[in-house]
Amino acid sequence: MSTQPLTRVTAEDVADIALGGAFLATGGGGDTLIGEIMAEAALTRHGPVTLVAVDDLAPDAVVAALGSVGSPTIMQEKPSNGRESAWALDALEATLGKKVDALIAFEAGGVNALAPFFAAAERGLPVVDADGMGRAFPELQMESFSIYGVSATPMAAAGEHGDTLIVPHARSSQVAERLVRHFAVVAGGGQCVSAEHVMSGAVVAEVAIPGTISLCRDIGRLIAAHGPRLEAFGQALAARLAPTHYGAVRDLMTGKVVSVERQVRGGYDFATVTLAPFARAAAPVTVDIKNEYLLATQEGRPLAMTPDLICLMDLETGRPITAETLRYGQRAHMLAIGAPALMRTPQALEVVGPRAFGFDCAYTPIETLAP
Amino acid sequence: MSTQPLTRVTAEDVADIALGGAFLATGGGGDTLIGEIMAEAALTRHGPVTLVAVDDLAPDAVVAALGSVGSPTIMQEKPSNGRESAWALDALEATLGKKVDALIAFEAGGVNALAPFFAAAERGLPVVDADGMGRAFPELQMESFSIYGVSATPMAAAGEHGDTLIVPHARSSQVAERLVRHFAVVAGGGQCVSAEHVMSGAVVAEVAIPGTISLCRDIGRLIAAHGPRLEAFGQALAARLAPTHYGAVRDLMTGKVVSVERQVRGGYDFATVTLAPFARAAAPVTVDIKNEYLLATQEGRPLAMTPDLICLMDLETGRPITAETLRYGQRAHMLAIGAPALMRTPQALEVVGPRAFGFDCAYTPIETLAP
Repeated sequence: MSTQPLTRVTAEDVADIALGGAFLATGGGGDTLIGEIMAEAALTRHGPVTLVAVDDLAPDAVVAALGSVGSPTIMQEKPSNGRESAWALDALEATLGKKVDALIAFEAGGVNALAPFFAAAERGLPVVDADGMGRAFPELQMESFSIYGVSATPMAAAGEHGDTLIVPHARSSQVAERLVRHFAVVAGGGQCVSAEHVMSGAVVAEVAIPGTISLCRDIGRLIAAHGPRLEAFGQALAARLAPTHYGAVRDLMTGKVVSVERQVRGGYDFATVTLAPFARAAAPVTVDIKNEYLLATQEGRPLAMTPDLICLMDLETGRPITAETLRYGQRAHMLAIGAPALMRTPQALEVVGPRAFGFDCAYTPIETLAP
Repeated sequence: MSTQPLTRVTAEDVADIALGGAFLATGGGGDTLIGEIMAEAALTRHGPVTLVAVDDLAPDAVVAALGSVGSPTIMQEKPSNGRESAWALDALEATLGKKVDALIAFEAGGVNALAPFFAAAERGLPVVDADGMGRAFPELQMESFSIYGVSATPMAAAGEHGDTLIVPHARSSQVAERLVRHFAVVAGGGQCVSAEHVMSGAVVAEVAIPGTISLCRDIGRLIAAHGPRLEAFGQALAARLAPTHYGAVRDLMTGKVVSVERQVRGGYDFATVTLAPFARAAAPVTVDIKNEYLLATQEGRPLAMTPDLICLMDLETGRPITAETLRYGQRAHMLAIGAPALMRTPQALEVVGPRAFGFDCAYTPIETLAP
C-alpha cells in the first residue's frame, strides 16, 4: 500500500479520507456518509483537487480555513444545500477584498477532513495537506491557528437557506466561536459552513498540523485493509505515524460497554461510557466525552487524556465508533495516540488540555502513562 | 411654544427629544439619561446635525436605519463606548461599497430617538425627521421598513469592545433580528448598535413614520411645560398630533398601582401591572407588558391595545413612567394614542397587532374603544 503523500484528491480517495477522518475524530464528528456522497459528487463533477504540502505553499499565498460548524447529527437528518462553502468563501473574499489562493481544513476529524474539497473542486483551488487540530475538537479557539496567534476574523459563514454572516472583527476566537455557533442554529437548523483564520502560506507552514489529509487517506486504507485485526492495525498505524509529529500509539484495552450515560448541555453531547475489560480481574475503564473521547480512567487513574487521541474501534468491524452510536453490550478496542507536537505545548494545553475541558488533572502524555 | 419642524438638532434639543422619546417608548426603552449626556457631548463637540423632512430627501439618497439593540437597562450600568455607531456604519458602508447619505432612527422610542445623532454629528451627515415605528417595539421586523418590504440586510452591528458583525443576507427580518440580538449579548454584554434597512430617499418617503424627531422634541417640551397638569397636557398633545398621521388621544384613567408581577423570559421583560382607579366603584385596570405597555383591560374588556400607544404618566411629576420603574403605590395617569396610519394597516397588524404579541384578540382602534 502506497503511503506517499497525496498530491491530488479524486472522487476515489473520498471514502478513505472520510474513514481516516472518522478515526481522527476520536468519537466526534458523527456519521460521514452524506458528506462522502456529496464530496464524491463534487469531485466527479469538477475533477480532482490539487493537494499542496505546507512547505510547497507560496509564502505569500492567501489561505483560509474552512469547515462545518454545528451538530454533525443534523447532517444525517437534513443534508446541506451543498452551496454553503461557496457562499461562505464569496462572503469572506468580499470582506478581504481579495481572492483566496488555497483552502485548509480547520479540523481533520470526521467530515470536516472533506469540507474544503467542495469549494476547492468548484473553484479549481488547491487544498493544503494539513489542518488546524490533527484530530477533532469542539470549538474554534482550539484550532492551532488560534492557539498560535492567527486571528479567527475576518470570518464568514453561510447556511443552507443562503443566509450569510461576516464577522469582520472579534476581540477573541471565543467571541467568534459563539457568534458562528449561534448562526449555525439560526441559519441552518444547527449547521453552517464557516471560512476563517485567513493567513499566509508562510504562517500555515508554522502553525498547521502537516500532512493530515494524506494521513486520513492512509489511516482509512489501513482500517479497510485490516478490518477486525486490530492488533495488526495498531502496529501498522504506529509505523505510519513514526515519521510524523504525532506521538506514540498504545493499545489500551479491549472490552464490552457496560454503561452509557448521556446528557446534552449547552449544545454539546456529554457522556460517560464504562467498559468492562475482557482481561481477567481488570477494573472497569471509564471514558468521559464532550463530543469527543477526552479522558480514559481506570480506578481513578488516567489511562489517556486530551489532547492525546483516544479512539474506540468496533471489535467486529475494526471501524471507529462515533460517540453517539455507543451502546450497551458493544465490544470495543481502545487505542491512544500521542497528539501532534504543536498540540502538546504549554500554549496549546491551555486551550485543549484536560483542565480546558473541566477535568481536574494536569496533562500527562500517553508515553508517560503507558511507557 | 414653536411647533415648527426642526431643521437642525443642537445639544440644546437633546433633553426635549429624549423626554419625548421616553413618552413614545410607551414604557420601553429604559432611562434615557446616559444617552442624553452622550448625545449632548457629541453635538457639542461636532456641532448641530441637519434634520431633513422625508419629502426633502433626494429620491436616490442612500439612507440607513440605526439604533441600539438589546437591553436598555445595560446602558444604565455600563455606558457604551460611544464609537459603536461609527463602527457599525463603517462596516455597513464597506459591505455596500458606497457611502450612506443620511441616517434614520429605527424607532423614535426612548434613547433610540437620539441614536442616529452620534454618528451623524461625527460624520456631518443629516438625520431624517422620521423613524420606523412612530413609537418603540421590541423587534427589528416590527419596523415599518420591514413591514413594507425593505430588506433588513445588509446589516452591520458593533459592540463596545470593537467586535463587529455583518449580515450580508438573511432570509427574513426575523433571522436578522435573532442574529443581531445574540451579537448584542456576546459582543456588548447585552447591547450593540445596529445599522440596517438600507433604502433610497424615495422609499423612506413611502415607508417611514414622518416627522417623529420633531414630534419627540415637541412632546418633550409639552411634558416639561405642563408638569403634573396632565389633563392640559393631553389636550395640548391632541392639538399637536391633529395634523399628523397619528390617531386620537384619549385619557383612559387615573389611579394607583396595586400590583406588579414581573418575569424575564427569552430576553424580554414580561410584566402585568394592575391599577386601582381613583374613580369611585371603577374596576381595576390591568396592563400587559412585553418591554412596552401593549394591552390595557378592565374586567376583561380591552381599553387600548398595540399598535396604539399606551402611556403611563407619573401623577406627581407628569413624566412618562418606564415599565421597569413601576412600583406598588405609584400614582399614574394612563393615556392612549392611536398609532400612526402606517402601523394600522392589515399588513402592519400582522406584525405589531395584539395577536403578534400573543394576545387572543383582534385589533380594535382606540377611537372605537373610547369613542
